[in-house]
Amino acid sequence: MAEPVRVGVVGLGWWGHRLCQGAADGKALTVVSCYARTPQTRDAFAEELGIRAAASFDELLADADVEAVMLATPHSTHAELIERAAQCGKHVFVEKPLTLTVAEGVRAHQAALDGGIVLQVGHNRRRQPANRRIRQMIDAGELGMVHLLQGSVTVPKDQVPRPGWRSDPSESPVGGMTALAIHLVDTYRYLAGPIERVAVFSKQLWGAGRLDDITVVALEFARGPLGYLGTSIVLPRTHTITVMGTSGIAWSDDDGEHLYVQDKEASSRTLVETEPLDTIADELAEFGRVIREGGRPETGAPEALHAVAVLEAVVESDRRGGGVVDVREFGG
Amino acid sequence: MAEPVRVGVVGLGWWGHRLCQGAADGKALTVVSCYARTPQTRDAFAEELGIRAAASFDELLADADVEAVMLATPHSTHAELIERAAQCGKHVFVEKPLTLTVAEGVRAHQAALDGGIVLQVGHNRRRQPANRRIRQMIDAGELGMVHLLQGSVTVPKDQVPRPGWRSDPSESPVGGMTALAIHLVDTYRYLAGPIERVAVFSKQLWGAGRLDDITVVALEFARGPLGYLGTSIVLPRTHTITVMGTSGIAWSDDDGEHLYVQDKEASSRTLVETEPLDTIADELAEFGRVIREGGRPETGAPEALHAVAVLEAVVESDRRGGGVVDVREFGG
Repeated sequence: MAEPVRVGVVGLGWWGHRLCQGAADGKALTVVSCYARTPQTRDAFAEELGIRAAASFDELLADADVEAVMLATPHSTHAELIERAAQCGKHVFVEKPLTLTVAEGVRAHQAALDGGIVLQVGHNRRRQPANRRIRQMIDAGELGMVHLLQGSVTVPKDQVPRPGWRSDPSESPVGGMTALAIHLVDTYRYLAGPIERVAVFSKQLWGAGRLDDITVVALEFARGPLGYLGTSIVLPRTHTITVMGTSGIAWSDDDGEHLYVQDKEASSRTLVETEPLDTIADELAEFGRVIREGGRPETGAPEALHAVAVLEAVVESDRRGGGVVDVREFGG
Repeated sequence: MAEPVRVGVVGLGWWGHRLCQGAADGKALTVVSCYARTPQTRDAFAEELGIRAAASFDELLADADVEAVMLATPHSTHAELIERAAQCGKHVFVEKPLTLTVAEGVRAHQAALDGGIVLQVGHNRRRQPANRRIRQMIDAGELGMVHLLQGSVTVPKDQVPRPGWRSDPSESPVGGMTALAIHLVDTYRYLAGPIERVAVFSKQLWGAGRLDDITVVALEFARGPLGYLGTSIVLPRTHTITVMGTSGIAWSDDDGEHLYVQDKEASSRTLVETEPLDTIADELAEFGRVIREGGRPETGAPEALHAVAVLEAVVESDRRGGGVVDVREFGG
């Protein structure tokens, strides 16, 4: 096994912690440094993990011992931080969405190419064993001609308004779409190819915070199928995808922990056993492997840019009050 | 128990048979006469059930022994047949949709009022025990503030094109919407009130027949929640509704045979036992009871007109290529 890649983590909220856990479990990365704007935050984080705290992002990048960075910072900061890391030759793992606009994402992608670095985006949910198996079923023709993808992802987190950047509409446009349902967009693309058209209804109904708390999107895939995704930040936790084809239907329920299938002749679904997988550890193991061994990550900038284009199209449809928007207008 | 109401059944395809079975099981109706345009069809049907075959709809209506009619004829015929029955003082049970346009539905409704007859529409699916229980949960506040209704209904019937009026686009506009997903529209209204806006993608993808074979609708309820419905006539059989509120989620799966709930703190759903119910027998028992005892049926013309308005709005959105359409434009 190759020597672990030495990484610095930037953005030290709950997700920064989760990434460090995943890095350790994936065994391909060693976290050696961290940075957050607030000195107390980074000092406490560094002490907890027994690592260095950098006094600035530049100091972290200047550290010759750091080969790569993991970014769990506000969405709007991603492009600039990726550019700066790339200029210093540091590889980047960045949380989804890559950026909030395709223009920013293209800048980040170009910077990564220019810097010769690996840029990987944290679209981990497609790695859920149920989603992997559904993709195999589609490729093997077991579902027949895919006609419909339906899914929703909901969390109750914003029933009481949360402090911090995640609750800022400029960081999370269209409510749960930006941070949550972007996972569905990537998994949909993995299963059925690019999304071409969207029509959106999104609003505040619970109204405790500043974000939309309920969103529905009708969509059409370039290959032909239709689809739907729904998301909310004030509803009990769910994460489910249904893929319906002419020969069978498959469900990835409970965030891909449970796979169900129903064939053409059946009238109800059957549970199919799958092995659990820590998708964070899995994606970070890939990040280390690609850095050491070459190749490109499964969800790099090209894949992530499609999700950003869909996000921009959803924002635009919402702005228009629900009209149909073509994702290709945004480069998707 | 009151004497059963003597009915004639009109439209003798598979659904005419199903209604006669439901009438017998509901015990409030006795089928005494039948009519279909094809003499062989009505003669065979009459012989099978041991009832009279009328030589024309007028002859059936002129039969003083017939108190009411059950209509399972093509959708486009409903308004005229209801008017003629009402003019003869015969009560009418008509299959959904009431009509294909609100204008026709209003005519039928007025004729029923003028004739002093009971007009009931076969929106039976809301009667599924799971749907009844979900309504109770909503009314009792157990789901909190309802934010999202999701559902889909699919059948594989048109993978091979079927003969007959059901496969005619003028009788079944927007594919599965007219005959199948109209059930979701009624159940949604039962659970969350009228639908106010729709945005539709619908198309032929399998393309074996003349109907759209895949349809998705994003929608907004007048009371605030958002929703989605999907339907297809070329996919394995499913019928599911999910109602998501801030305090809990309920699923009516397998056409209301299975009820699942998940409360706010849970991370997955739990099966709740319900008693099975023959919803056709149940609605036809109500039809007989209202005729004998007075009152009005749960799904009369006023309720059914909303579903027709939504259908018209869906047809219009599809015609516009997916734009948002306000159901109130159609009187809904």
